[in-house]
Amino acid sequence: MPEPRSMKALIVKHDGLAESRGGTGIDSLEPYLDYTSVPVPEPRAGQVLVRMRMASVNPSDIYFIKGEYGQPRVKGQPAGFEGVGDVVGGKGLYAAWLKGKRVAFVGGVSGSGAWADYIVVPASQCEVVKSAMRDEDAAGHVVNPVTAWTMFDIVRKSKNKSFVFTAANSQLGKLMAGLARDHGICMIGVIRKESQAAHLKDLGAKHVLVQTEDGFAKEFATLAASEKPRILLDAVADQTSADLFTAMPSRARWIIYGWLASTAPTLHQPGQFIFMDKKLEGYWLAKWFRQASIVEKLRTLRGVQDRFISGAWKTEVSATIRLADAVRDLPAALERGDGKVMLVP
Amino acid sequence: MPEPRSMKALIVKHDGLAESRGGTGIDSLEPYLDYTSVPVPEPRAGQVLVRMRMASVNPSDIYFIKGEYGQPRVKGQPAGFEGVGDVVGGKGLYAAWLKGKRVAFVGGVSGSGAWADYIVVPASQCEVVKSAMRDEDAAGHVVNPVTAWTMFDIVRKSKNKSFVFTAANSQLGKLMAGLARDHGICMIGVIRKESQAAHLKDLGAKHVLVQTEDGFAKEFATLAASEKPRILLDAVADQTSADLFTAMPSRARWIIYGWLASTAPTLHQPGQFIFMDKKLEGYWLAKWFRQASIVEKLRTLRGVQDRFISGAWKTEVSATIRLADAVRDLPAALERGDGKVMLVP
Repeated sequence: MPEPRSMKALIVKHDGLAESRGGTGIDSLEPYLDYTSVPVPEPRAGQVLVRMRMASVNPSDIYFIKGEYGQPRVKGQPAGFEGVGDVVGGKGLYAAWLKGKRVAFVGGVSGSGAWADYIVVPASQCEVVKSAMRDEDAAGHVVNPVTAWTMFDIVRKSKNKSFVFTAANSQLGKLMAGLARDHGICMIGVIRKESQAAHLKDLGAKHVLVQTEDGFAKEFATLAASEKPRILLDAVADQTSADLFTAMPSRARWIIYGWLASTAPTLHQPGQFIFMDKKLEGYWLAKWFRQASIVEKLRTLRGVQDRFISGAWKTEVSATIRLADAVRDLPAALERGDGKVMLVP
Repeated sequence: MPEPRSMKALIVKHDGLAESRGGTGIDSLEPYLDYTSVPVPEPRAGQVLVRMRMASVNPSDIYFIKGEYGQPRVKGQPAGFEGVGDVVGGKGLYAAWLKGKRVAFVGGVSGSGAWADYIVVPASQCEVVKSAMRDEDAAGHVVNPVTAWTMFDIVRKSKNKSFVFTAANSQLGKLMAGLARDHGICMIGVIRKESQAAHLKDLGAKHVLVQTEDGFAKEFATLAASEKPRILLDAVADQTSADLFTAMPSRARWIIYGWLASTAPTLHQPGQFIFMDKKLEGYWLAKWFRQASIVEKLRTLRGVQDRFISGAWKTEVSATIRLADAVRDLPAALERGDGKVMLVP
């Protein structure tokens, strides 16, 4: 059966970056996306055409749509970085080998996107999904799970027995909690709402602190003294993050992997970098993919898939929305923030 | 000739750290130091007694006296970290070997100090000074010159062809300028007063920018684009430092080795740590001394001495003050800030 010439997709309405900096939420998709018909993209050499099964919605997608991600938008292209689908065409030997297989991928930012009936991606960026893995787990198993896996590797390689995780109610936080428990490492999760604490502890976080509560700073100082966390994995980068870092012991590393805050942190104790040998650095999954060896990537992706297949990790899906309904329904689903939102054709 | 039982010294009047944070200057020494008679300290096992020839005055001495350094003061002990003198006694084999030799040293913070007729220091911290080296060069050849040498090693090992240096009119800045020129590396010096620019260029800085001038930010942005400096060696840690770092290219490292500012920097672009792989860290000479191998230390100290003996480095002494006159004369000499101030018994 030949594939159609045209498809439905959620198309980006703007080019480049925006001046705005609105933080994590999105009130309405209408200013940013159109649900419309566009031609099915054509694979070039080394690329495959994938018929989408399911796409995940990550914070980076929302930042990108708004023009607030580190990469410029391309008007007229479908949005969406990550998903799972079936390879139905392609050009090149490896593309031919992939044909008929179910693959997961993270698409580029300048090409076609995953919030569409079809996407074109480089064959080299496709990960064949084991048959025992659910679409719900496969659709988002690269961005967040590989980030969790590789950031947890940073903790393990540092030989620290504890770490701090901000915005810990995120999918990433939940994935980290399980890894921490399974490896006997203490995760100190920092969250905004008390209601999320019990679930995060169930998942494996040893301590969960609510940053909006009285006594938060004192409670953290006590934990910093007893658990001696020396790694702060931080998606927020606001003053609370800076203050947590200041309260951590010598040789602490503040690793920023996201910037959810719309305010900027002030470093009140620059002397700690000198006398306490503290460090501030970043983490970016794209850089990991560029620098890791093929063996390291395969081992990591296989490890991630096996963890989902075994049930040690489970994607908590809070809503599955059709592309046709996304402009109307996605903002409210994201606002609830109690699980992963998926898009299906 | 036996050494006397008592000596003159500048004695610290307070214990511990102060709450204050007054920045780099000092208006009067009277609140902090007494010139008085105290017993000559007794060397314990592994220590030597040194008859002082000359002590240098470093920013860290002033911070320490005021209780604003990273280490608590000990009331009743002489001030002064660094100097040169003759070994006149000691306990242990190595101490006996050092007897009669001229040595330079950096004293501990909890023991006896260099702003005195005599000091006791661990024999292992003494550096025998080659006879061709002037006392003026030897008295301050550890703290600043070894810092310059080892920080310059960071630049060289990074393979960068340029670096940025703040507060570049310091002795350290002048030492760095010569190293930079001799190794064909571009130093971009940042200073406060136009009057210092020509001298710093003479010494070897390729570019000198005056931060108080209009157009400073734009000028730096242009240089950042052409010279691509990826290391910022920074003794200030204020908003100007943070803004320089923000304007630097991807993979830039901000290395804080001092905190002259009394204000704290805000990080307006935390995303640069993620997407541009920037890093913020500290440098502390004491840590280098703890971690470097003996061979590395000997090679470095010999390299430093040879550089002074050859005339490639020269200590610019602006005032030599007797201990007895220091309480009266030292603040004004430091205020001039146009060279190194030395203290002699």
